[in-house]
Amino acid sequence: MINKMFELSIYLETRRVEIDRALQKFFEKGSMLEKAMRYSLMAGGKRVRPILCLAAFDAVNGDPAHFDMALNTACALEMIHTYSLIHDDLPAMDNDDVRRGKPTCHKAFNDATAILAGDALLTTAFEVLASESSLDGNTLFTQLEVIRAISRAAGFQGMIEGQMIDISSEKKILTSDELKNLHALKTGALIKVSLYTGAIIGNANKDQIENLCEYGANIGLAFQLADDILNIEGDPEVMGKAVGTDSALKKSTYPSILGIDKSRALAVKLIDSALHAIDNFDNKSDPLRSIARYIISRKK
Amino acid sequence: MINKMFELSIYLETRRVEIDRALQKFFEKGSMLEKAMRYSLMAGGKRVRPILCLAAFDAVNGDPAHFDMALNTACALEMIHTYSLIHDDLPAMDNDDVRRGKPTCHKAFNDATAILAGDALLTTAFEVLASESSLDGNTLFTQLEVIRAISRAAGFQGMIEGQMIDISSEKKILTSDELKNLHALKTGALIKVSLYTGAIIGNANKDQIENLCEYGANIGLAFQLADDILNIEGDPEVMGKAVGTDSALKKSTYPSILGIDKSRALAVKLIDSALHAIDNFDNKSDPLRSIARYIISRKK
Repeated sequence: MINKMFELSIYLETRRVEIDRALQKFFEKGSMLEKAMRYSLMAGGKRVRPILCLAAFDAVNGDPAHFDMALNTACALEMIHTYSLIHDDLPAMDNDDVRRGKPTCHKAFNDATAILAGDALLTTAFEVLASESSLDGNTLFTQLEVIRAISRAAGFQGMIEGQMIDISSEKKILTSDELKNLHALKTGALIKVSLYTGAIIGNANKDQIENLCEYGANIGLAFQLADDILNIEGDPEVMGKAVGTDSALKKSTYPSILGIDKSRALAVKLIDSALHAIDNFDNKSDPLRSIARYIISRKK
Repeated sequence: MINKMFELSIYLETRRVEIDRALQKFFEKGSMLEKAMRYSLMAGGKRVRPILCLAAFDAVNGDPAHFDMALNTACALEMIHTYSLIHDDLPAMDNDDVRRGKPTCHKAFNDATAILAGDALLTTAFEVLASESSLDGNTLFTQLEVIRAISRAAGFQGMIEGQMIDISSEKKILTSDELKNLHALKTGALIKVSLYTGAIIGNANKDQIENLCEYGANIGLAFQLADDILNIEGDPEVMGKAVGTDSALKKSTYPSILGIDKSRALAVKLIDSALHAIDNFDNKSDPLRSIARYIISRKK
């Protein structure tokens, strides 16, 4: 088990370096706008979504010739995630001063620059997704399906709707189902589509796609549960951000509804379901298995 | 001439109705987020960019089988334009209370909702651009090139960089070249790409594409000049927004640098260049000719 965790940490680190190097390549000029975009993008995120995308591609034995499309997609997913954090942190939204151990974008620059840097990261994500077309019809079709799926997951019936529900639910007590819906939209949709896109770029069959989406839906919710628990029990030093903020904002969370023990038990159950969904996959999906287990044991 | 203007007004009205009907179709549910998106999107904009896209498609005699792709692209361009207005109007940016004769999005809803509605319109634009793929390789290739071109024009080296330069130039006196660069990015890039995408969906040849882009660059700047002049001489009642705001913010504008007469003369010269660029086009490009002339005669 110790050995397993060790391997995962090497895997995650290798992927992180690969993704960070790829992300750097999209920026050249030193404009203030680019500085702000890079500031947040390269602030040391865990790269969960891009790693899941690449791990799904590997899990279905994706053709190395299509790896660059998977890597571009991984980068786009991280840009979208980062833009959502920049906008969420704004004074008009969650009003957070610290993120990933550093001042948030609007604190390091200003509100206007943070709004524009977020807009620009979102726009660049689609530029990256549309880049380097091949002339092969099947590949083009997949590339468009990736754009369709990501825009839907990140849009007004996905991530942004989740954020909208979140800000209008502050100080309200949500039911467990309402909370599940909120998280399925706010964080689940983008996590699930990370797996979906990695799978289709890897030319997965219908069953594999379904299984990976099932895995994604389960770890997505577990990830949120773990976040909620860390917001109560985590070490702010290790996490690089404040804890206790949910409770201060009177946000409905799983621990506030179910209590912390039942929340932890639910997270374990979700991870079991995630692992079960990819039971039939071979050892190429070992990283996905380790990541699932890591989600509920992580300290940040 | 009166007859000509009359025809243009019918053309513009017909197109506007066509575009408005198409825009409506992308929304179904009555969520608060969708309400805010629709509020700004359906607030009676002039639909300049989508009309230019469709007019370019017509000007190169586009295949009717590809009209739906042109119409989708037109809708996406309007969504991107509208999102940029919503974010520009925010208190952290231009802090405008009135737009198109109505309270701005953040006034009608609140700042957080306006940020998210803008984000959602931008994201939906790409969902629309990626929708309804054909299985034909050429069409797919064009569709991806449309996404590439629009994301580039709207992104950190296009429209958003223009907005960034704009907000950091308040109270600064710009040179005429700096002002030209600002407008080429802030408004020119999206106008030019409206023509470019209409042209390539219409299967234009290289010369036609170049001519239409030249037309676009010229009317784009003329449009901005006319806007600057209207901000001084316009009737707020007719325009549905306040005038004199540029001067109050000490913004550099063509009238403030060149004076109003020279600005008007420059606008006329740009329109002449725009018309000259499409000299070789047949009467299918008459709407583009009328639109060019209209830009400097409009009252709002």
